[in-house]
Amino acid sequence: MKSDLDALMQSKKLDAIVVLGNAEHNPPMYYFTGGGHVSNAALFKKPGQEAVLYCNAMERAEAARSGLKVIPLRTGAVDVLVKTPKDIFIGQGITSGRVGLYGTLDVGDLVAMTGAIRSALPEIELVGEPKEDSIFLRAMETKDKAEVERIRKMGKTTTEVVGMVAKYLMNCEVRDDEVLLKENGAPLTIADVKSKISLWLAERGAADVEGCIFAIGKDAGVPHSVGTPEDLMRLGQTIVFDIFPAEAGGGYFYDFTRTWSLGYATPEAQKLYNEVQDVYNKVVDNLDLNVGFKEYQKLVCDEFHKNGHKTPMHTEGVLENGYVHSLGHGLGLNVHERPWSRHNVADDNILRPGVVITIEPGLYYPEKGMGARIEDSYYVRTDGKMELLAEYPYDFVLPMKKWKKK
Amino acid sequence: MKSDLDALMQSKKLDAIVVLGNAEHNPPMYYFTGGGHVSNAALFKKPGQEAVLYCNAMERAEAARSGLKVIPLRTGAVDVLVKTPKDIFIGQGITSGRVGLYGTLDVGDLVAMTGAIRSALPEIELVGEPKEDSIFLRAMETKDKAEVERIRKMGKTTTEVVGMVAKYLMNCEVRDDEVLLKENGAPLTIADVKSKISLWLAERGAADVEGCIFAIGKDAGVPHSVGTPEDLMRLGQTIVFDIFPAEAGGGYFYDFTRTWSLGYATPEAQKLYNEVQDVYNKVVDNLDLNVGFKEYQKLVCDEFHKNGHKTPMHTEGVLENGYVHSLGHGLGLNVHERPWSRHNVADDNILRPGVVITIEPGLYYPEKGMGARIEDSYYVRTDGKMELLAEYPYDFVLPMKKWKKK
Repeated sequence: MKSDLDALMQSKKLDAIVVLGNAEHNPPMYYFTGGGHVSNAALFKKPGQEAVLYCNAMERAEAARSGLKVIPLRTGAVDVLVKTPKDIFIGQGITSGRVGLYGTLDVGDLVAMTGAIRSALPEIELVGEPKEDSIFLRAMETKDKAEVERIRKMGKTTTEVVGMVAKYLMNCEVRDDEVLLKENGAPLTIADVKSKISLWLAERGAADVEGCIFAIGKDAGVPHSVGTPEDLMRLGQTIVFDIFPAEAGGGYFYDFTRTWSLGYATPEAQKLYNEVQDVYNKVVDNLDLNVGFKEYQKLVCDEFHKNGHKTPMHTEGVLENGYVHSLGHGLGLNVHERPWSRHNVADDNILRPGVVITIEPGLYYPEKGMGARIEDSYYVRTDGKMELLAEYPYDFVLPMKKWKKK
Repeated sequence: MKSDLDALMQSKKLDAIVVLGNAEHNPPMYYFTGGGHVSNAALFKKPGQEAVLYCNAMERAEAARSGLKVIPLRTGAVDVLVKTPKDIFIGQGITSGRVGLYGTLDVGDLVAMTGAIRSALPEIELVGEPKEDSIFLRAMETKDKAEVERIRKMGKTTTEVVGMVAKYLMNCEVRDDEVLLKENGAPLTIADVKSKISLWLAERGAADVEGCIFAIGKDAGVPHSVGTPEDLMRLGQTIVFDIFPAEAGGGYFYDFTRTWSLGYATPEAQKLYNEVQDVYNKVVDNLDLNVGFKEYQKLVCDEFHKNGHKTPMHTEGVLENGYVHSLGHGLGLNVHERPWSRHNVADDNILRPGVVITIEPGLYYPEKGMGARIEDSYYVRTDGKMELLAEYPYDFVLPMKKWKKK
């Protein structure tokens, strides 16, 4: 939680941290500001002290809404730090010691800025923590009730939109060659479906800021293929629908996946789906408080391996089919955050109370034109209960209202 | 244009460039990939050679859509470069020389990565160009016809949505205290209007990825205040509506502002608006091929100064009222890019053919609860004509259909 940051700074022997970039779509900055139209800002914080936000004077009203102490500048704070970092650092009483840098920034600006800081203030040691285990991802790893409530609400929005997509597809007319048709009689494409998803999210105050995966056939067999816009929607093919919207303005995410086959399923696809569902159920039935997240990844790898699939635990090199990813990840202001679930990850990635995680096993066979994944997000409650944050049915075959198998 | 990149690399004596981060919402990467769901990737390019894209194998299908040569990795390329950069650099034949770094990235990852590169490959000199004059903003400064067409289309979408907002407001019922009411009889808030804007953009394949300014009264007097969500819409107050949407998926932006006063205007606000409009017209009437952009900023500063307003050219320190910003900026994959228009900017920011710019003078008096800005985007055509990319009327007072001044 945010209140852990001071202790985390001290554990990393950081005398100060500087968070750089915009207030939106920049989780460490959003963590302090709660969003707002503040760009190229710089936030300074020392352990045990309140944060101070430097920003362009034009954006001072936006910055003030954060409740932080705001220091307006004539240009963006990043510009000042690139050109003449000394005054701001001296103004903050920082002329030596270890200073951690965080946020999201233009790469050229940051390389120039670190050079300028090193030459103006040689006694300062700049510290860059790789994001995946940084003090921010560690603080964010456990959520307070208000944060979980926002994720839960986004889950409700997400499943509402998924239900609308399912209903829309099931009501489509179907051509003789099993292609779905839209209202005007033209073939329904992935692009058509995606524009509806964006629209239905926007109507509910959410946004697919990082896109959305709606992939059919071969694309469904490549876990992060988002789908080919011009692909036609057809019966009897696996559709992987992975939707991870955030609050409009760049807040908390939800993450959710279902796999569908419209009208009917091939026996091979049905078998694949059943395997994924069995493993999903096994994991969910066994989730336990304070257990290492990777224990469940190992469980999944072992199950899939037994059934003859490749897994990251049993195969070296780049995986192009089988179970090719890890079981899940934390979820919050980042769509992917701590705890991590890779089979060889550090032991401190555990299902501690306050954690929100995804559980998303999948199997992928692009050369057979199919893939399947099931994903839900869970809150590890302080009472030890694993709370499913948004319920949604697990049907694989979606029956078509206006079509029957001949 | 993109074809200028090789020469620009050579002019900066760069032996190679590395572009880091996601394909979306990351202009230098989008410039090569055209978007797509590719995250934490790394693109390598040497002068005169084709670019190569390293990505997570899970995202190889998305990456391949760019048409670039793709090298799949078992994890994200950024992760590999943070931990073990040597193999990739050697694979690209880069073990010494000047290497420029670009893109948008997590700050901790980048600081860690530059440390890892410096220690693994000490013969490499890492170069960070401040964004605002980097080779990418220089290449992007001039657009080809296809790029301009995309901006023009976004302009059409933008002005369509602005027209819908105007029509919606003019049709609202008005309470006795001059507060606008929505369909259900409750007061209309800034948040209500903004959610309509997001929705109407989404319906048209656009997104307010960087937000949108819809600010009334005092907020209208602070140029980059985006508006207070709970503020009520009222008659007779200046409303600054600055909308800068991009193509969904993170492509080209448009940028547009109108200032409105609903029902009637106070004489003081009308005077302010007229001054801004007069200066806007003067600038637009005088735009000329190959002139320095800052010449027009100087013209605006001189005009406003003559009328007793503070300006960046005539006042030291942080400006909180008067004319507090510069006249405009280039527009493309970045909402703000070259050419720049500050009065003291480098001489090479000129209105050369192929440039797309905004012209947006404004005056701000937060203590009087008012502000005014007019903004349009122009394409400097190769035949010397300054083409207004999307037409929209300049009415300041929007008459209310269901209300009359008593």
